[in-house]
Amino acid sequence: MSEKIVGILGGGQLGRMLAASASLLNINVIILDAGENGPAKQLLAPLAPHLAHIDGSFADPDKIRELASRVDVLTVEIEHVDALTLEEIRVATEGKLVVHPSPSTIQIIQDKYRQKEHLASHNLPVSDFVSVESSIESISEVAQKLGLPLMLKSRTLAYDGRGNFVLRDLHQAQDAISALGNRPLYAEKWVPFSKEIAVMVVRTVDDQVHSYPVVETVHKDNICHLVFSPLHSRDPSLSQRARSIAEDAIRSFSGAGIFGVEMFLMANGKIFINEIAPRPHNSGHYTIEACETSQYENHLRAILSLPLGSTAMKVPSAAMLNLIGYSSSMTEIKATTDVALKIPGVSVHLYGKSECRKGRKMGHITIVADSDTQLRTRLRPLLESLPSSSVEEVDRYASLPPKPGFSDPNPLVGVIMGSDSDLPVMLPAARILDHFKIPYELTIVSAHRTPDHLVEYARSASTRGLRTIIAGAGGAAHLPGMVASMTALPVIGVPVKGSTLDGVDSLHSIVQMPRGIPVATVAINNGMNAGLLAVRILSAGIPGLIDAMGQYMKTMEQEVLGKVEKLKDVGWEDYQVKKT
Amino acid sequence: MSEKIVGILGGGQLGRMLAASASLLNINVIILDAGENGPAKQLLAPLAPHLAHIDGSFADPDKIRELASRVDVLTVEIEHVDALTLEEIRVATEGKLVVHPSPSTIQIIQDKYRQKEHLASHNLPVSDFVSVESSIESISEVAQKLGLPLMLKSRTLAYDGRGNFVLRDLHQAQDAISALGNRPLYAEKWVPFSKEIAVMVVRTVDDQVHSYPVVETVHKDNICHLVFSPLHSRDPSLSQRARSIAEDAIRSFSGAGIFGVEMFLMANGKIFINEIAPRPHNSGHYTIEACETSQYENHLRAILSLPLGSTAMKVPSAAMLNLIGYSSSMTEIKATTDVALKIPGVSVHLYGKSECRKGRKMGHITIVADSDTQLRTRLRPLLESLPSSSVEEVDRYASLPPKPGFSDPNPLVGVIMGSDSDLPVMLPAARILDHFKIPYELTIVSAHRTPDHLVEYARSASTRGLRTIIAGAGGAAHLPGMVASMTALPVIGVPVKGSTLDGVDSLHSIVQMPRGIPVATVAINNGMNAGLLAVRILSAGIPGLIDAMGQYMKTMEQEVLGKVEKLKDVGWEDYQVKKT
Repeated sequence: MSEKIVGILGGGQLGRMLAASASLLNINVIILDAGENGPAKQLLAPLAPHLAHIDGSFADPDKIRELASRVDVLTVEIEHVDALTLEEIRVATEGKLVVHPSPSTIQIIQDKYRQKEHLASHNLPVSDFVSVESSIESISEVAQKLGLPLMLKSRTLAYDGRGNFVLRDLHQAQDAISALGNRPLYAEKWVPFSKEIAVMVVRTVDDQVHSYPVVETVHKDNICHLVFSPLHSRDPSLSQRARSIAEDAIRSFSGAGIFGVEMFLMANGKIFINEIAPRPHNSGHYTIEACETSQYENHLRAILSLPLGSTAMKVPSAAMLNLIGYSSSMTEIKATTDVALKIPGVSVHLYGKSECRKGRKMGHITIVADSDTQLRTRLRPLLESLPSSSVEEVDRYASLPPKPGFSDPNPLVGVIMGSDSDLPVMLPAARILDHFKIPYELTIVSAHRTPDHLVEYARSASTRGLRTIIAGAGGAAHLPGMVASMTALPVIGVPVKGSTLDGVDSLHSIVQMPRGIPVATVAINNGMNAGLLAVRILSAGIPGLIDAMGQYMKTMEQEVLGKVEKLKDVGWEDYQVKKT
Repeated sequence: MSEKIVGILGGGQLGRMLAASASLLNINVIILDAGENGPAKQLLAPLAPHLAHIDGSFADPDKIRELASRVDVLTVEIEHVDALTLEEIRVATEGKLVVHPSPSTIQIIQDKYRQKEHLASHNLPVSDFVSVESSIESISEVAQKLGLPLMLKSRTLAYDGRGNFVLRDLHQAQDAISALGNRPLYAEKWVPFSKEIAVMVVRTVDDQVHSYPVVETVHKDNICHLVFSPLHSRDPSLSQRARSIAEDAIRSFSGAGIFGVEMFLMANGKIFINEIAPRPHNSGHYTIEACETSQYENHLRAILSLPLGSTAMKVPSAAMLNLIGYSSSMTEIKATTDVALKIPGVSVHLYGKSECRKGRKMGHITIVADSDTQLRTRLRPLLESLPSSSVEEVDRYASLPPKPGFSDPNPLVGVIMGSDSDLPVMLPAARILDHFKIPYELTIVSAHRTPDHLVEYARSASTRGLRTIIAGAGGAAHLPGMVASMTALPVIGVPVKGSTLDGVDSLHSIVQMPRGIPVATVAINNGMNAGLLAVRILSAGIPGLIDAMGQYMKTMEQEVLGKVEKLKDVGWEDYQVKKT
C-alpha cells in the first residue's frame, strides 16, 4: 500500500483507531506515548513489523527525535505537542521527513487565541474575541467591551472544557483567575448558539479539501456526549454553508490530514467557527461504521499521498454516544454496553484503558439506522442506562416509537392538506402509516391561503429529513403540484372530491402536471392508497418495508378469500355487504 | 462486556478478524498457532492483557490442553483440529470449559462423508454420494451408480479445492487415486449447478439460529473469488428457501457460534447443500462493512452467551473480492490495492502475511454501493487489475456504467408498456433515466396478451432488485394496476392517449385503483414525468439523487427565465414558440 513508516505522537484512543486502520492496509506505524499500556499500544505487537511503539512522552524532544529517525511521515493524535521541535526536525532533515499537519499549523491551532486571529484574518466567521490578562482590571475592561456573560479561556492546553471559565458576573473575576491559573488567557464574546455542529475536513498534500457531512454535536459538562449525522435542518442552505466554511477554514492552513471543525449555529442561521482540531476528532468516530471511508483511514491516506476515500455516508442515519467514566469502576460503562448488545445497528468500541475515572473517555458506541426516528429509538435505552441522564435529556435526544395520531419529531412522510375539511380523506393515509410504524407528520398547508408557509414547507422538506410528501386538495387543487415544484422529493397527490364535479376537477388539476414536475396521483378521495404508496416509495430506502407490504397484501387477499367462503356458506341472498 | 477468556485454535486471517472484533469489546482472547508471525498474532500485543497467544500447533494435544487451562471458552477458526482431544478436555473439566461449536459437531463436519450422512439423515437436501475405496474397481463401480462426471473427494483435510478430483472419464481413475493420496475417499454425484450460493448462520447456546442474507459465491480454481450480497433472483421464493435450509442444517448440529453453509442452486430452483464450515467463513467477510453486526462479532457473542447482533445488511449492495497471491511477490496484490484506493465504497483488508504465494489468501476487498449496478461498476477496475482475469470474466461479474438505449443487467427501474406502439410515449421516461444515469430495463409486458409474463414479471420484480416500475398503457390500461397488485414496489402509471376519448379512458383506468393497491399516476402521455417521478422515488434510497434532481429543476428554471429574457428582447410578435 505504502512503504512509508508513519510515526504518531500520542497513543490514546485516536492513536488506537489510527493503528487499527493502518493495520488493515499493512501500513507501518510507530507510536510515541508515555502510558505503559495505552489504548494504541495494545494494538502494537512487537511480532508485527508494521506496528511498533516507543515509550516516552510525546512532549520530550529527544523522544520525538528518536521517533523521527525511524519514520518517513510524522503525525499527531493530539495538538498539544512540541511543535517547535517538530519544525526543527523537519528542517534538519531537509524535508526528507514529512510532518502532517505542518508544525506551523499545529502551532497556530494549539494557541486558541492565535487560532482565532488566524481565522479572523482569513475572513472566516468567528465571534468577537480579545486578549486579556490575568487581572481583575483587564477582565473588567474586556467585560465592558464584550458584555456579560463572557467566556474566559486559556490560550493553550485546553480541551474537554478544561481551561474554560464562564464569567457571568464581574464578582467571579478572581475565581476565574484562580481557576485558569497563571496561563495566558483570552476572552470570547458569549455565543448564545442554538446548536453545536461540526464538520470533518480532510486535506491532501496538494491542498485539496473534502468534507464529511455536517453533524450535530451535543456536549455535556463540556465533553462531547452525542453526535448525530447527518444534521437535518429546516434551513435548506445550512449543510452547504457549514461545509463551505469548514473547507475554507482548512484551506487557510498548511499540511495534510484530517481536521475537525467545531462550529456554533445561531438561531438566525449564522455560523461561527468555535475551534479546530488538527487531527481525527470525536465528532468523526461515527465514520468508522457509517461512511464509505473512516476519518482514520482518510487521515492516513492524506498524509501518505494516497488517493482519498469517499466521505459519503453509506447509511441513512448515524449517531455516536461517548462512554464517559462515571466513577473509578467500569460498572456504569458495563451497564450501558450490556444494553447496547441488545440493540440492532449498534457497535461498541472500548478503548482498553486500564483505569476508569469520572469524566474519562472509556469508549464509544456507534448506532446506525435507516431513519432518524429509528436511530433515536435505538438510542433511547442507551441514554436511559446512563446514571447521569435526566428524563428530560432522554426525551430531548431520543425518541419513543411513533405515536399514532400525533406528528413525529423526525418524520419521513409529510401528510398535508389544503384545509381541515380534507381531514376525513387524509386520515386513512395517516392510519396506514401508523400501521407500518412509519414516522410522519400531519398538518395543514394551504396553497392559496398560506402561500409563504407552502414555500417554506416545500423548500425545507428534504433537508428536514422527509422522504416523501402526501398532499391532499380539492377543486383547483394546486397544493400537490406547487409542493412538487419546490422540492425534489416524490409528492403524492390525493384529489379530494368537492361539492361539484365529483372530484374530477381535483383529479385533473393534480394529475395533469406539465413536463418537468411530476405528481404521483392516486384515486379520488383515496387517502388510504396515498398512505400505501408512501410506504412503497419508502421501501426504496428501507428494504424491510417490501416484506411488510407483501404481508399486508397477503392479509388483504385472505380477507377477500374469506368473503368468497362466506358467500358460499351463507348464499348471496343473505350476504350482508359492508358499506364503506 | 464479558469476563470470560476465549481461546481460539488457529491464528490465520479468520483468527485475526476475530481478535480485531474482540478487541473492540475488550474481550480477552488467547490464540494457539504455530506460525511465527501469523495474521492473528500480529494483533496480539503482550502489553494488552486481553490479547495473547501460545506458540504451537492447534493439532498438538499438549498445546490444546495448555490453551484450555487458560481460558473459559474454546473455539476454532479452522475445522481441521483435534476434535477428540477437545472432547476429552471438555469432559475432564466437567463442563467448566465450554467448547463451541461442540467437538461432536466439528468431528462430523471435518469428515465430509459423515457430514453428508448427517445432513441426509436430517432430510436436508444433498446430492447423491457414496463411500468409495482407493481402487480402480471401487471407483468404476461408483461411476456406474452415480454416472460421469463424478466428484471424488477426500473425506478429511480438504479445503479450497485441495482433496477434490473431478473424474470425467474412467481412464482418470488411477490419476485420481494418485492425486488424492491414500486418504479415505467418497464420491458425489456431479451437480450441474447454475450458481453457488451461501448463507452464514449463527447459533446461540440455547439453540436459536439466525441467518445472514443469501449471497452468491463465485469460485475460481476452487478458491472463493467473489461474493455478492444480497443475491438478487428471478425466483421470489429463493431467499426464504435458502435461508430455511441453511437454518435447518445448523439446527441439526450442537454448540454455538457462526457457521457457513455453502449450497448449489440448480437451474430449476432446487437447492443442494454442498458443505458446511463450523466457523467464520470467507463468504461472510463482507459483513464487517455491510451488516449491522459482523460474522466475527456474532460468533464471539454467540459463544459467550451474549445477545446476538442484527444480521441485517446496512447498505443496499455489497461484494467481496479475495486478494489471492499470484506469485511469490506482493506486486500483483499491490496493483489491485492501488486501484482499490481510487474507488469509492471500497475497504481493503490485508492480512499481514509475511510471505506471498500463488493461491494464498493475502487479503480481501469489500465494496459497498447503493445498487448492484454501482457495485459492479465499482468492481470492474478491480477485476481488470487482476493478472488472472479474462475479459470474459470481467464482463460476466462487473458492469460498465448504464448504456443509454439498452437495458441494464441490474436494473433499478423497470419501464414496461402494453404495446410497442406506446414506445414514443415511454421513450422520454427512458431518456430521463439515462440523464440521471439510473440503471433500468425497457420492455413490453401486455396485461391482456401476455398475462403469464405479466405475473412472472410483477412477482419477481422486487427480488430481482427493481425498486420501482413505470408502466404505460392505453385504453382499458390494466397493466399498471395489475402489476401493482402483484408487487410491493411503487408502480408509476402512464396513461397513453388512444385514438378516442383523448386518453381520459386510460387515465381513469389507471388512477381509479381500489383501496389497497395504489398506482402513482402521472399526466396523460407524460412519460417524461414518469421518469422524473422514478428518480424522485429512488432518492429515498440514494440520497445523492435529491441534489441531482434539485440541479435539474434549477436548469429548468434557468431555461424558462431565458425565455423571459428572449420575450423581452425580441418582442412577442417575433417570438417563435417551439412546438413540442
